[in-house]
Amino acid sequence: MRFIIYGVGAIGGTFAASLASAGHDAVGIARGDMLAAIRANGGLTFRATTGSQLVNFPVVGAPDELEFRPDDVIFLTMKGQHTAPALDELRAAGVTTQAVVCAQNGVNNERLALRLFPNVYAMTVMLPADYVTPGEVICYGTPKRGLTDLGRYPHGLDDNVAAIATAFDSAGFAAFPLEQVMRSKYGKLRDNLGNVVEAALGHGSRSGPLLEAIQAEAEAVYAAAGIDWVAVGNADPRRKGLMEMGAVAGVTRTGGSSIQSLKRGAGTIETDYLNGEIVLLGRLHGVPTPLNAGLVTVGHELVAKGASPGSMTEAELRVRLGL
Amino acid sequence: MRFIIYGVGAIGGTFAASLASAGHDAVGIARGDMLAAIRANGGLTFRATTGSQLVNFPVVGAPDELEFRPDDVIFLTMKGQHTAPALDELRAAGVTTQAVVCAQNGVNNERLALRLFPNVYAMTVMLPADYVTPGEVICYGTPKRGLTDLGRYPHGLDDNVAAIATAFDSAGFAAFPLEQVMRSKYGKLRDNLGNVVEAALGHGSRSGPLLEAIQAEAEAVYAAAGIDWVAVGNADPRRKGLMEMGAVAGVTRTGGSSIQSLKRGAGTIETDYLNGEIVLLGRLHGVPTPLNAGLVTVGHELVAKGASPGSMTEAELRVRLGL
Repeated sequence: MRFIIYGVGAIGGTFAASLASAGHDAVGIARGDMLAAIRANGGLTFRATTGSQLVNFPVVGAPDELEFRPDDVIFLTMKGQHTAPALDELRAAGVTTQAVVCAQNGVNNERLALRLFPNVYAMTVMLPADYVTPGEVICYGTPKRGLTDLGRYPHGLDDNVAAIATAFDSAGFAAFPLEQVMRSKYGKLRDNLGNVVEAALGHGSRSGPLLEAIQAEAEAVYAAAGIDWVAVGNADPRRKGLMEMGAVAGVTRTGGSSIQSLKRGAGTIETDYLNGEIVLLGRLHGVPTPLNAGLVTVGHELVAKGASPGSMTEAELRVRLGL
Repeated sequence: MRFIIYGVGAIGGTFAASLASAGHDAVGIARGDMLAAIRANGGLTFRATTGSQLVNFPVVGAPDELEFRPDDVIFLTMKGQHTAPALDELRAAGVTTQAVVCAQNGVNNERLALRLFPNVYAMTVMLPADYVTPGEVICYGTPKRGLTDLGRYPHGLDDNVAAIATAFDSAGFAAFPLEQVMRSKYGKLRDNLGNVVEAALGHGSRSGPLLEAIQAEAEAVYAAAGIDWVAVGNADPRRKGLMEMGAVAGVTRTGGSSIQSLKRGAGTIETDYLNGEIVLLGRLHGVPTPLNAGLVTVGHELVAKGASPGSMTEAELRVRLGL
């Protein structure tokens, strides 16, 4: 079993470095500045609570540079707005029945993948990691680097789930096979609704009455749509003693993935597939979602104007959301 | 009410020419060879059973060349594989609450549009038209050019539906407002499963036991998914005397839209959103769809090798599908 990690950012970089360090066969598909930096540095600089190391694993720039094997497991770790073209590239490169694991935030990637590929898995990733500087990924999780829920999409368990979970357990993660894994992903989506709030207001702003009101819209649409979900955020009791925030020498946490996108000047933001998913479900099931709809607009405006994280005050954001 | 027709091909070209000829305010968004030919010729050559005319209406190359107005009605008439970037371009060009009408085959476009825009409509289009030569569209429908079912997505009727239907009735179409319009679109999708068969085998090959077996897979997944559908194909009793195939001087029918894509060397094919929709539903609901899955692969192979329409025999296709 070889692990192909498509998207070497905070999550994909931690996956690839951890799997490779544990002796697994891991290959990264990276792009742009990250690809160039890994090549220039002779590996990925992986900084964790246990220390920093330069981890060397094969990295290519696109799927068509690889010869795919039947037992490859392909992790999708790009942002949701980049999934569709990535799937087209995988198919064009010869991928057919290989396991495709959606390790991303949001719940739309699995559906996109299942249109093209028969063996799709959903992975909920609880992994505090930053990618801000090309060539470098920082992971704050300790003693485990991250927790993951994993299962077949739309549901079910199989030998691939067991084998991936075993590999992840051996590489410093705690992996939980889950028959109804989408319940966990919808729970994570509810938490990720704060990503754009944090991008607007700055790190540390993803709690309080505003976030509760935003999440209440999600809970209402889930109820209307008959979607089961389970909380997996900071309140998840599995975290205690297993995966908590630790200190990494010389750095401080940047924040969630949307704040990292702004900080890197990535030019796009995942909001359509986080808050926008709640908006879509609300429109499908007749539930108003004005806060999440407003946040989608705010997210795109932040990117369009090249805003830095924390460029708005909460008072400004509240006015913008009609509160 | 101004009509923006995004995608000037067989359907979009017939819409724009017919609406403009009837005195409506119609604007086309075209690309590539079609845009160049319309500009060079001073209009779109529209050939119908009643004769040929050069119809002049404003045409631009992209949404950001337009100043959108609140009462614009935007028709999506590109193929399903081009919808997502088109929606992004509309939003970037300032579209917000305008009516967005998905006049395409397949049932995925509406969901994509509803993620970004609150007022989305589904239109089932029964319109025998060809686009093979840049600058020219041929419509064979008579006495009406085409029939359309129209409603809000996911369901419902409103003033926009009524106004669009009235405009279409005045422009040579017969428009039927439908409260549950997706029933009609799922019926059309069932018919469109033959598009790739026709592309492989040639015009006139979309009936018989093979097509029935392909459609039986769709009926099984619809039943498993709880999807209501209504037949709208050649068997639709509304067609008789209202919209039948007529003769257009000097030309013969090319065939369905996928055969036209091959004939134009378009480089892409809509199969992922036609047969691929049945495959996706099958995977979501545990129903095998080997024929439609095989046809998706065949469709992409035809495009990849630049095949002409009718490059396979039915015997070859049956072997390819494991029959």
